[in-house]
Amino acid sequence: MTSGEDSLIFSYFKPLATDPGAFGLTDDSAVLKADGEDIVVNTDAIVEGVHFLPDDPADTIARKALRVNLSDLAAKGAVPGGFVLTLALRTYDEAWLAEFARGLGEDIATFGCALLGGDTVSTPGPLMVSVTAFGRVPVGKMVRRHGAAAGDCVVVSGTIGDAALGLAALNGGAVATALADDSKARDALVTRYRVPQPRNALALAVRDFATASMDVSDGLAGDLAKLCAVSGVSAVIDASAIPLSASAKVLLDRSVVGLETLVAGGDDYEVLCTIPENHMPAFVQAAQQTGVPITVIGTIVAGASPPRLVDQAGRDIVLKRLSYSHF
Amino acid sequence: MTSGEDSLIFSYFKPLATDPGAFGLTDDSAVLKADGEDIVVNTDAIVEGVHFLPDDPADTIARKALRVNLSDLAAKGAVPGGFVLTLALRTYDEAWLAEFARGLGEDIATFGCALLGGDTVSTPGPLMVSVTAFGRVPVGKMVRRHGAAAGDCVVVSGTIGDAALGLAALNGGAVATALADDSKARDALVTRYRVPQPRNALALAVRDFATASMDVSDGLAGDLAKLCAVSGVSAVIDASAIPLSASAKVLLDRSVVGLETLVAGGDDYEVLCTIPENHMPAFVQAAQQTGVPITVIGTIVAGASPPRLVDQAGRDIVLKRLSYSHF
Repeated sequence: MTSGEDSLIFSYFKPLATDPGAFGLTDDSAVLKADGEDIVVNTDAIVEGVHFLPDDPADTIARKALRVNLSDLAAKGAVPGGFVLTLALRTYDEAWLAEFARGLGEDIATFGCALLGGDTVSTPGPLMVSVTAFGRVPVGKMVRRHGAAAGDCVVVSGTIGDAALGLAALNGGAVATALADDSKARDALVTRYRVPQPRNALALAVRDFATASMDVSDGLAGDLAKLCAVSGVSAVIDASAIPLSASAKVLLDRSVVGLETLVAGGDDYEVLCTIPENHMPAFVQAAQQTGVPITVIGTIVAGASPPRLVDQAGRDIVLKRLSYSHF
Repeated sequence: MTSGEDSLIFSYFKPLATDPGAFGLTDDSAVLKADGEDIVVNTDAIVEGVHFLPDDPADTIARKALRVNLSDLAAKGAVPGGFVLTLALRTYDEAWLAEFARGLGEDIATFGCALLGGDTVSTPGPLMVSVTAFGRVPVGKMVRRHGAAAGDCVVVSGTIGDAALGLAALNGGAVATALADDSKARDALVTRYRVPQPRNALALAVRDFATASMDVSDGLAGDLAKLCAVSGVSAVIDASAIPLSASAKVLLDRSVVGLETLVAGGDDYEVLCTIPENHMPAFVQAAQQTGVPITVIGTIVAGASPPRLVDQAGRDIVLKRLSYSHF
């Protein structure tokens, strides 16, 4: 009795809703079982023209919408437990929806995060995908931004700045020109922008050893400042220690971009956490078992001043902006 | 270290996030405690120009976004347990945000549903508010659309069609003309459209006695058809028994609108449920204690055909459309 389009949406998404609590998407609401654990709740939306580009492939939009939320769960030390999806569509394009559902389905399988339910609405404006994701942690064990203490090591996973370079490459300009002869490097950076690689493999190591943690979504510099502010501490970061991909290093060395583009650009979806020095050996070992590279980039220090970014001679590097801001 | 605007958003919403699991909105994620119950998850978004009008007061937009989700929780027999909010803003208007937060805060207090977290993003398009709300039920006790059985009474709360008339009045045309001399009636109908009255008071009675339940959001006729389809049954509805407000009756009697406008218009946010006949006395008594009016409008019958709407002589009334469709 639903409209033909509703039935098609249903037919694309029902195969993804395999969790018993989703009731095959036949109900208004879903049931999330708690099993004596805390439920970690995270919600992040992506908007066409803001978080992804109108030309981005439909499957990458679905993946990004889910992965930006999975990245938060990873940083909180939580194991993915399911998600709900709100899809605001301007037009009804069956081929687009099929690709969107295909990408989403693959990521659901990859990350073990089931579709529990959702809402599809029409909009006269840009496409928007809003996800609320649920993770599980033992009671009281969610790793917060609060908790970093003087002396803790500041650790970041993976590499920083690649997604910002990928977006810059898509937008043309100096980065696109510099990469014109290296399509492999360009494609790798663009993929970092379009399809984040959330560090869910690292979640249990973070849960067991981190005093504070968050994911890097708006820019390393700004996100670290937020973590420090909530924890009531400061930090000293060694700029030369910040892990960069080979492509990012080349573009930085050739002055195609400045450090600010890399550390304030955002969209990294790496884990930023603080680890007490005496737990570092155990954390390093746990991280190695997951295969996720981690790097110590600095130290938490006492004080209320913003984190300092210093060069190898210990001189302050001052950035004009720390992170992406929506307004 | 956040931008000035982020800080202002934070300052408006932080006072609303009083649940300990919200961490005062200082974290990426929230913690939802389960306490041995099932968590009912519902997500519904509202879009400017689709679910509300550009001129609607900011506080009513906030209330509607929360209440359309609370209405689902009520129909599922769940007690509100919190929500997360995604706000996609085209412009940053502090006065608007203050009014939005004021309305939201009042409803949080009224319905006992705490703000756990959220995401604020910029959009070049229409304002959109997406809410994911959480309810609690004893394990296995969520009332589904599935479960209606032949012989059950079909029950609806409140009155049907008022919100559709309110929207029609706002849009001008025959309804607006007919109500031109009765601003009190017009205002009451417009309020039904802008600020739904979710029936959370009825939730425990629904949980204890209903075999199937959903809220009426897209139109009584279409929503009943969905409930019957999932339950594998049909229904016979007595059109003359459908509860109408005095204003709706007058407009129907004067042929300003037809029955279809009322039963297929949507935005009612009443509870539609099925109650076994032998439980009706207990259900009626439980409902009376809540003060929420309920009406028996028909009976579930065996069969796979769509529900029939009949007049007092038992003749079929055929509607051109059953509910609102987004596409």
